[in-house]
Parts: sequence; structure tokens; C-alpha cells
Amino acid sequence: MTQPNITRPSGRTPTQLRPVSISRAFTKHAEGSVLIAFGDTKVLCTASILEKVPPHKKGSGEGWVTAEYGMLPRATHTRSDREAARGKQSGRTQEIQRLIGRAMRSVFDLKVLGERTIHLDCDVLQADGGTRTAAITGAYVAARDAINTLLASGVLKSDPIIDSVAAISVGIYQGVPVLDLDYPEDSSCDTDMNVVMTGKGGMIEVQGTAEGPAFTRPELNALLDLAQEGIRDLIQLQKEALK
Amino acid sequence: MTQPNITRPSGRTPTQLRPVSISRAFTKHAEGSVLIAFGDTKVLCTASILEKVPPHKKGSGEGWVTAEYGMLPRATHTRSDREAARGKQSGRTQEIQRLIGRAMRSVFDLKVLGERTIHLDCDVLQADGGTRTAAITGAYVAARDAINTLLASGVLKSDPIIDSVAAISVGIYQGVPVLDLDYPEDSSCDTDMNVVMTGKGGMIEVQGTAEGPAFTRPELNALLDLAQEGIRDLIQLQKEALK
Amino acid sequence: MTQPNITRPSGRTPTQLRPVSISRAFTKHAEGSVLIAFGDTKVLCTASILEKVPPHKKGSGEGWVTAEYGMLPRATHTRSDREAARGKQSGRTQEIQRLIGRAMRSVFDLKVLGERTIHLDCDVLQADGGTRTAAITGAYVAARDAINTLLASGVLKSDPIIDSVAAISVGIYQGVPVLDLDYPEDSSCDTDMNVVMTGKGGMIEVQGTAEGPAFTRPELNALLDLAQEGIRDLIQLQKEALK
Amino acid sequence: MTQPNITRPSGRTPTQLRPVSISRAFTKHAEGSVLIAFGDTKVLCTASILEKVPPHKKGSGEGWVTAEYGMLPRATHTRSDREAARGKQSGRTQEIQRLIGRAMRSVFDLKVLGERTIHLDCDVLQADGGTRTAAITGAYVAARDAINTLLASGVLKSDPIIDSVAAISVGIYQGVPVLDLDYPEDSSCDTDMNVVMTGKGGMIEVQGTAEGPAFTRPELNALLDLAQEGIRDLIQLQKEALK
Amino acid sequence: MTQPNITRPSGRTPTQLRPVSISRAFTKHAEGSVLIAFGDTKVLCTASILEKVPPHKKGSGEGWVTAEYGMLPRATHTRSDREAARGKQSGRTQEIQRLIGRAMRSVFDLKVLGERTIHLDCDVLQADGGTRTAAITGAYVAARDAINTLLASGVLKSDPIIDSVAAISVGIYQGVPVLDLDYPEDSSCDTDMNVVMTGKGGMIEVQGTAEGPAFTRPELNALLDLAQEGIRDLIQLQKEALK
Amino acid sequence: MTQPNITRPSGRTPTQLRPVSISRAFTKHAEGSVLIAFGDTKVLCTASILEKVPPHKKGSGEGWVTAEYGMLPRATHTRSDREAARGKQSGRTQEIQRLIGRAMRSVFDLKVLGERTIHLDCDVLQADGGTRTAAITGAYVAARDAINTLLASGVLKSDPIIDSVAAISVGIYQGVPVLDLDYPEDSSCDTDMNVVMTGKGGMIEVQGTAEGPAFTRPELNALLDLAQEGIRDLIQLQKEALK
Repeated sequence: MTQPNITRPSGRTPTQLRPVSISRAFTKHAEGSVLIAFGDTKVLCTASILEKVPPHKKGSGEGWVTAEYGMLPRATHTRSDREAARGKQSGRTQEIQRLIGRAMRSVFDLKVLGERTIHLDCDVLQADGGTRTAAITGAYVAARDAINTLLASGVLKSDPIIDSVAAISVGIYQGVPVLDLDYPEDSSCDTDMNVVMTGKGGMIEVQGTAEGPAFTRPELNALLDLAQEGIRDLIQLQKEALK
Repeated sequence: MTQPNITRPSGRTPTQLRPVSISRAFTKHAEGSVLIAFGDTKVLCTASILEKVPPHKKGSGEGWVTAEYGMLPRATHTRSDREAARGKQSGRTQEIQRLIGRAMRSVFDLKVLGERTIHLDCDVLQADGGTRTAAITGAYVAARDAINTLLASGVLKSDPIIDSVAAISVGIYQGVPVLDLDYPEDSSCDTDMNVVMTGKGGMIEVQGTAEGPAFTRPELNALLDLAQEGIRDLIQLQKEALK
Repeated sequence: MTQPNITRPSGRTPTQLRPVSISRAFTKHAEGSVLIAFGDTKVLCTASILEKVPPHKKGSGEGWVTAEYGMLPRATHTRSDREAARGKQSGRTQEIQRLIGRAMRSVFDLKVLGERTIHLDCDVLQADGGTRTAAITGAYVAARDAINTLLASGVLKSDPIIDSVAAISVGIYQGVPVLDLDYPEDSSCDTDMNVVMTGKGGMIEVQGTAEGPAFTRPELNALLDLAQEGIRDLIQLQKEALK
Repeated sequence: MTQPNITRPSGRTPTQLRPVSISRAFTKHAEGSVLIAFGDTKVLCTASILEKVPPHKKGSGEGWVTAEYGMLPRATHTRSDREAARGKQSGRTQEIQRLIGRAMRSVFDLKVLGERTIHLDCDVLQADGGTRTAAITGAYVAARDAINTLLASGVLKSDPIIDSVAAISVGIYQGVPVLDLDYPEDSSCDTDMNVVMTGKGGMIEVQGTAEGPAFTRPELNALLDLAQEGIRDLIQLQKEALK
Repeated sequence: MTQPNITRPSGRTPTQLRPVSISRAFTKHAEGSVLIAFGDTKVLCTASILEKVPPHKKGSGEGWVTAEYGMLPRATHTRSDREAARGKQSGRTQEIQRLIGRAMRSVFDLKVLGERTIHLDCDVLQADGGTRTAAITGAYVAARDAINTLLASGVLKSDPIIDSVAAISVGIYQGVPVLDLDYPEDSSCDTDMNVVMTGKGGMIEVQGTAEGPAFTRPELNALLDLAQEGIRDLIQLQKEALK
Repeated sequence: MTQPNITRPSGRTPTQLRPVSISRAFTKHAEGSVLIAFGDTKVLCTASILEKVPPHKKGSGEGWVTAEYGMLPRATHTRSDREAARGKQSGRTQEIQRLIGRAMRSVFDLKVLGERTIHLDCDVLQADGGTRTAAITGAYVAARDAINTLLASGVLKSDPIIDSVAAISVGIYQGVPVLDLDYPEDSSCDTDMNVVMTGKGGMIEVQGTAEGPAFTRPELNALLDLAQEGIRDLIQLQKEALK
């Protein structure tokens, strides 16, 4: 499938990521604290080490990795209700935090981690599309930093992280597969897909949804090709940030 | 990818669906009421016509299609807490009901529906894997029946349903792609994927998750091939049930 | 009090039960699983054995028997809100599940049961009046089946069930005491009474309410006479179902 | 059934009410405010007039009468959790307030009341058994006072209250039917029954429960006889209080 | 600052408290039970002794003192929603109960108390301004009574209460500092301040709020002078009540 | 009162503020968005303009100013539960957001604002003591920016902000009154006071609490002197930031 000439709202080419920045040690208390930006999308990802595990892991010798996700009320164009004030997390929030948790667990050996929890908190300070993929990509770096403190202090003898992991969105915008949807694209595209992959190139999650008309196998393949390229770049950016 | 010889717990071949049954008019009050069974998975899907729409559709001239999902506490091997008693729906429940809602909206023309809501309730009476795919496949039939009452009574002049829709799960079990996972397979497979497609063959949702090691593009392709076959059969079974 | 000629909406005589059916092993996971129908009222009653007790029984050597009740949203003429989505059980639901729990405990010797819980779940698939009395009548059969598995496996040496129990509604409809109200009668009758009795003929609960004008002692007596007859029949039907 | 010689913890005879006092205008803001004492059980019943009705009565021309019930945390022997802090009302609380509401509505002509609500709040300051029956008996007096203000001011031209209403508990204590159970009796009696009757002698609610062994028709009859006597006295005490 | 001639709605002079009454043993179950009235404001304060402590004190050898606050729905001019029915306590309620708890802990030596909790419940039966200050002043007397039972029974060898504590409101009403605001003053005053002090004259809490224009240091000083006088009188009234 | 030589954990003198920075337009969607830092305490304050008012202001011609407060879970030394996941805001959170709201309303003329709401969200990214005072000080700048957009666009003809407002904490640390407590001081000081004042020097809120022994009038005066100095500096810093 050739990439025809379309004009993306941002002026990017169909295969172009937004500028990505990854700032470590953004806040001082968390064992890992990363501000990640995919263009105007900014997510603060912290990794906390808790010396306890949830009930289903007690006595198992294994640890746990979990995630929570939130958006500041005015991270968005118009103010959203504060979930703490409403008294519950939306279905969307729960869906996203479950996705982040699964993605992070996919690169952890919970036995090596031992009976402790890595709790990832991904809070969106500013939203412009792709908050869940930025969250996964940043959470990996925060987790890496947190685990490094455990290795440095000798609490852990060997590394429970077995691979890196990153995520990107792709979609069909004006008939053309494009990489890393920003908000204007996300809110008007036909098909939206989030892909999570490891540093070694394995696929962890593929979540594609037709927002308008159904999509075809060739379109799906084109989107996956794009996503693989994008994630390869993100994995490289993670490496550089962790140097 | 050739299908090697494995023994599925149920004795099925890798490409074999469980016996599917679709019983219409299972309960008497709902405008559409379908008991669908995928083997031992049994889901009661009702479609209710409500002559009102949610706030974001008020005055738009358009209707809405939405879904809720639940499991009876003892639909499962061990009793689960009743969500009504716990006071909230789990993240899993919300994720599934959002998926069902999106799948059903993909085959509706909301303008033709007019300012009314089709509310689908999918309640699992007995669970043995694949409850969400059975729910989508059954909900379509319930919705079809409900819309037919509106067409028959003249409330609707033309049909707001533009295609049929069904769903199936596929996964990699003992290294082999298999169709329509039952619970023993689901709880031990490496990769689990749910696919939603329309009667015309378009893809609506693809949700693949590596439960263990990451999966590859060839594996993904093999799974999608299997799913397409399975959904083709389900669409045919829906047609027969609706005769 | 003689029974004058009235026409019940169903064509039944004042002293006539609806057709009752009791199907055991309706679902496969629960230790007891009964679909009971009182005419068009259909309730799925499951009995789960849990090897734990609530806090107030811990260390007492005694077990516990409890019940929960729910209605599928479209069990009723018009769709009711799903309690799990609303985030709380209604007062009516709590009232009913407390009644079922008391009724079932009245035939259990909790010492003989030992420190385990019989958890009864009564879920209304289709409602046409009398859901709480059907639930009690069916829950007894489900509990009986569950206890039988414990006796068969030798976990229990002696039987903790000391009697059978069933329930029926009676009411004054168009001035006439009638047995086993269906929905059209229930929603327009003057006095509504639910009676729970044991196989040996003892009374466990009598709950009579004037929906319109107050009722008199003679009317109360006539209603209790009717209920005693009806429950005697239900106890017989339970016995046959359990053969 | 003859009344054998038993010793009630309070020294009362089986047919003796506790001392009852009814203090009107106990607090100053409510349109009706009554402190009622059945012995050591003390309930503050207020009646508030609200110039609005719940949704199901809007535009009907009819009013509504409803009740809420609460216990101060240390109304009881040991402190109970505050329901406002726990975030929900117990099943027992909801059961009781629904009972009070039904009892009060049974003596109101909602058409004559017009589109306004009488909201009764029954808050137990001190509990010693029989709080729900004291609440009903006191709520009637509070409602009467509130309606009188509407009649006095000319807002209402005719009286929407068509009868008086009171309630009492009866039970089988040490094998003997006794009237007006106090806490020591209530917590150890075999059968417990609450009866609501009108001034004209009609029965509104009969709620009898076997706490231990089942009860018989003759026992039920003896309890109802006792209750009728007791309520007759309460109705008289209401009249005197309202003079 | 001289006190100019203003007319307070109650006819009091600016420095005059409302009539204060303190009735001990108002209810019978609580270890301390005090009905305190500041004019028409009436608060029932009970002190309960619980032989357990919250998690953060477990194993510390120290006790805990905590408070909860509530208003009966019709304690106020117009009926307020019942917090138990709404399912949560308002911000105002939480603010007040945290204040009462801090005030009471300020006069307790938690080590001497040992691992038990004094739970204070302050429930407003009738509100006319100043409910939180009446609650603190009454809660002290209830706590004193509860501790006395522990000393009398020998459970405690020495007294964990190290001082007395009371509270009063002051405000600027029509430009004049006045003591002990009642509701008409409270709802129209410019500055409102609550002051908590001990019997020895130390300050525990000062909470001043400009409801209208900002206040000045001289005004603040005048208010504090007034409050000190008022609290001195309240401490004296507590002493007399405890004789 | 002379300031004796103590060593503050931060090395500051008793009268010294932490370094304060105020960054405007920190995020792009909100009409006002300010990141304020008091040393290591960092709070993101956004001001949102909503063209609607809460029910109690509807039809009044007046606007409303309100605030919400939150802490990211890992803003603190050890991870705190996410309030959105727990399903309610803590008493502390509600107390703080009510304080911020009152402070901001004290400098607004709600009539001039017209029927719209300024919604302030103060989210703590990193906590090191004094989050509520930083929040108030930053929220003013965010509100100023938001109002300026309304003035610039001509929606507002005249300025509804009548003064500036800022806040600071003071406390008695090791016997010495100190300005702007950081976390190590806050968690071990005897008396803690938060003071809110306007640009013109009026007092809006004084909230002083003895955490340990009671405080005296002279100590209170010394604290207020310190706070006045500190707020004067903050007001100046706000002005510079707004240039």
C-alpha cells in the first residue's frame, strides 16, 4: 500500500512520530519518575516500590506489577469531571490502566522480582491524543529506574526485567494509514489501533477498532507495519534516555 | 502455518467451533431475547427499546445503541462476588460492555434509528470461556428481533441495521492457533485474541493479548485467518436462527 | 368465607397455583442449581458451598446460610436499571434477600453444618409476580442438592437440614382471597401476603401488607388458610423434584 | 390460650405495654416534631412539609408521604457504625423506613394532600427494642401536627388524613405471647411480630418471623389478639397527646 | 475597641453567651452522654469506650480519641438531605468532625489512655448556629464521664485527661464583635471565628474566616478577647455540670 | 519576641520563604495554567471558564468561583492511595479545596463575573509541605490569566477581580516561630497556622492548630506578624509573574 499525499493537521508525514521527550527524575519522591511527551501529550509516570503484594500473590514468592491511570481535569480541551470527586473511575480509565498493567507485566519475571509490587502511576498533565501509548512507553523507563535502585542497593541480585516495552497508536486518517495519532486525527479517524511491542520485536497487544466503516486485512497489515516502525524508534529513544 | 496435531481438552480440531445454539424469544418481556450457547458458555442477550436517548444525543435526531454485561455470581467455577452487592462493576465488566456496545453500533445507522435507544443486556448464566464473543453474536440476533418489531408496527419505515455482526475468540494453545477457546484453553493459552467482524467481512475489532510470551506477525495472521473462518460460520448460524 | 365467582386474569380458580416446574442441575458449576418456574416467573437458584464463614461466626464451630437476590434488567415489563451499574442494591432487593436468608436458615442446624457457608443466589430471569416465593421454594432444592454433595463425599457425616421450606403469596383480589398472585393481580390487589412454612407445617414468616384499604382478621385467616394449602402442594413438588 | 406465669425482665405482665410518652413540639423547626418513648426506647419523629413531589408523582395532582429512619451510633448497647460514614444504609434500615412509609401512606388521601410531600424522619436517640413500632406511632402524631399547620393556614381546605395509625411488637417469650418486646425479650424470643393497625381497627401490616422454631396458627392468633389490644391503647394515647 | 450599641436579634449584649445547659446521662447506653444546649442549638454528645484502636495505633501502647458529627435532617430550618441516604458525608461534616477530634485529643495523654479508643459522637438535634462549638464543649463532658467509669472500675489507674477544653464562636456582626453567634447572626455576619481553648487558657484552634470584606488585626484581636472571656465561662459551666 | 538561633532543616532563617517560582501557561488547554513551586512543593493550578453556574446561582445574574484539590499518588514520600480508585475524597482533601474556594471567592465580585464559573483545579505534583498555601497563591495567578482572556475578548467589560490573594503557613518549630514550613518542619512542629491575606493587607483566613501543647496569644501574634511579611512577598512575586 503506497502512502498517498495527505496533509496531516500537524504537517507530519504519515510515518512520522511526534517529537518525543523523556525526562527522568521529574519528581523526587518516587523510585522512578518520568515525564514523557509525545508532542503536546504529556504524561507523568512514576514507579513506586511497595514491599507488599496483593492477596492473590501472598506467600507465592512472586511479586506484582500494576498500574493506575488518571487525567488532570483540565488536561483536556474542555474540563472533565474529576474522577475522585465523582466517586468512581470511568470505564475508559479502567480499560487503559488494565492495558498498561498487562503491558508492563509482559516484560517482568515476577519470580525474580520477589514478593514486592511495582506500582506505576500514569497521570496525564496534558492530553493531545495517544495518552495510553505515551504512558506505557514512559512507564517502562520509570520501572527501569525503580528496579535499578533495587539492584544498586543489593535488595535484588538479578534483574527481573527481561525486555523493554513501548507502545504507539496508528490509524486510518482520510483513507491513509498514519503513525502516532494526535487529538485532531484521533477524533476524526476511521480506524484506531494501539500496538504494544517489546524491544525484541514481539507483539504484546494489538487493539484495533473501526470507529467508522469496517477495516480490511490489508489495512490492518499496513497499520501493523507502521506501528512496528514507530515502536522500534521509541525503543531506541528509551535506550538513549536511560543512558 | 500448518496445524500440527494437538489434543484440545474438548477433543475439537484446532479449527472447530463448539456447538452453537441460538434460541430466540427465550424470555417474554424483552423486544428481543436470545439465549446463545457456545458449548457450555450460555449468555442471555435481551434487546430493549427505550423511547429516549442519553444526553449527548438529545435533539440530534439520532438514536443510540448501548450494552451492559453481567455474570451471575455462580456462572463460574467458584462463586464470584455479586457486583450489585459490591457496589461497582469491575474493570473487566466495563471493558466487555464497552466492546459489545461498539460492536453493535458498528452495524447501526443511528439516524435511521431515530431518537430511541436499543439497550442490550448480556447476562452470563454459565461461563466456559468466550462469554464476550457469545454475547456479541447473540446480541445481534436480539437487536434484529427488536428492530423487526419496530418495522412491523410501522414505528420505523426503514431498517437501521446495515449489516450483521458476530465475534469469536482465537488463541495460541500449546503452540497451535485454535478457534473458539473454552475455559481450560483460555486459562492456559499464550495468546488470546477476540475478533469482531461484520456479515460483509469487514473487521470491527481486533484485540490480541500476549498472556505469556509475545506473539509474532505470522502467528497474528494465522489467528486472524482462523477467526475469519469462524465468524463466517457464526454469521451463517445467525441467519438460520433468524429464519 | 366462601370463594365467590371472580375471573382471575389467568383464568385460574382462587385456590389454584400456577404450573410449577423445578429443574435441577440447570447450570453446571454450582453445587446446587435449580431453575424454578411459577408460571411465567422464572428464577435461577444456585447454592454454593464456601469453606469459610463471615466474621461473626469465625471460631464458633457453626456455619452460615445466606442469600442474595437479583433481577436481570429485562426480567420485567419495562427495563429496570442494572443494580451493579447504579452502584447499589435497592431497598426492595435487600428486603427480599434478607427474607430468603432467614427462611433458609430456619431449616438448617448451623452446628451440624460446621464452619462453612451455603451461599444462595436467586436471580430472576423472568418476572411475573411472586419472585421471592419462587426463590425460597427453589433455593431449598438447590441447598438440598448442595448438602447432598457434602454428605456423599463424606465431608459431612450427618445432615444439617432439619426440615424443608417453601413459600407462596396470597392476596385479596377484587374482594376475594386468591393463591399465588401473578403480576396483573399483584399490581392491582388490595392486600398482599407472603407466607413461608416448613414441610412439617410450622410457620416461618407471615408478611401481610394492605396496599389499599386495611384488612380484617377474617380476611387474614382466609389468606393463611389458602397459603397453607398452597405450601403443602409446593412441599410435595419439591419432594418429587428431588427424587 | 391462657397466659401462664412468666417473669418478664421488666416485671411487666404479658399484656402490659411499657410506659408510653408522646412529647409534641420537641424541636422547633419541623412542622411536626414528636419525641415518643416506649419505655427506654426513644425516637424523635419529625414531619417536614416539602412543596415538591418525587418524579413519579409530578403532574399527577397527588402528593407523597415518605419516611427515613436512622439510629444514632450510640443509641445501642455497643456503638454501631454511623451509616453516613460507612456510605450506605443497612438492609435493616431500608426495610424499616419502607415499613414506616407504607404505614403512613395507608392513612393519607394523596389527592387531598395535593402536590406536596410529607417527609417523616424517625431518628432513634435510645434503643431498647421496638424502635420501628415507636417510630410509626410517633410519626403519625408528627404528621398530624404538620397537616394541622396546613389546615390552619388555609393551604389545605380539607384534611388528607383519613384515619390514625399505630404499631406494636408482640412475640413469644419463654413460650408465652407477650406485648411490646423490650430489648432483652427481643434478643431471646422465639417469634417476633410487628403489627400496624389503624384507629378504626383495620390491619395494615402483619410481619411475623420465627427466630427459632416455627410458630403455629394458634400462636399467631394469640399474638394478633395481643397486638390489637396494645394498638387500641396506643391509638388512645395518640388522641390524648393531640388534645 | 469599644462595643457600640447594636441590637442583636436575640437582644443579647455583644459579650453575652446564650443560656447554656449541660445535661449528663441523657441517654443510658453510652459511657458518657451529654445533651448540651447553647440557646436553641442542641447537640447530643456521647462518648463510647472501644477496646480497640485504629490500625495506625495498633501495638503502640497508645490509645486514640476520635469524633463523628451529624445533623438530624430536620435539625435545620429547612430539611437537609440525610447523609446516610445520600451515601456520603459532606465536606462541612468532615471538616467539623476533624475539628472536634483534634480538640479532644489536645487534652488527652494517649499513652495513659492505653490501647483503647474514646469515640465521640456529636449529633445535632436542633441547630441555631454554633453547633461545632457546642459539640466540643459537650464532648469534653461526655469524655470526662466515660473516663471516670474507667477510673472507677480500676481499668485505668491514672487519668489520661490532662486539661479541660471548650469552644465558642465569635464574629463581626454589623461592624461589632459579638460572642456566640446564633443562626441569624451567623448567616449575615462579615467575619466568623471559632476558637478552641483549654481550661488552663491555652489556645488549641483559631479558625477565622472573612465571609464578606477582609478583617484586620485589631478586629482579630477584639474577637480573640471576646472568645477568651466566653470560653472561661464555658469551662466554669462544664465544672459545675460535672460536680 | 526575638528570634533565637535555631537550625531549620533547610538551613533557612526563621523568617525566610523557600524559593518561589511561578510559571504561567504551563499547560495549553486551560484558560489559566500555573505551575507554582514553594521549594520542592510543586502544584499545578489551572483555571477553567465554564459558561454555566451551579444550581444555587442559576438565574441570579451572579457567577461562581470554586476549587478542587488533588495529590498525585506519588507526590508524597510514600505512595498514597489514588482517591479516584478509592471512590472518595478524604476529609483533608475536602477541607483544603473548600479553603481554596473561599479564598478565591474573597477577591471576586460575582455580579461582575456574570453567570459563569471559574473552576480552579490545584493538583500537587510533588509535596514538601505547604501545598494548600502554594495552591491558593498559584490559583490566584491562574484565575487572573483566565479573567484576562475574558476581558481581552470583550466577553467581560469590567474586571470581576477586586484584589489579589496569597497564603502562607507559619508554625512554632523547636519553640521558634518560623515562616513557610516544609515537610520536615510541618511533621514535627507544635503549632501550625495557615494564613490567607489579600494584596491590600486584609485577612481572609486564619487557621491555627496546636499539634502539641496549646499556644499563647503572644505566640499567635508572632505567627501572624511572620505570615503578614511572607504574604507581602508572595503578593509581590505574583505581580512580577503577571507582568
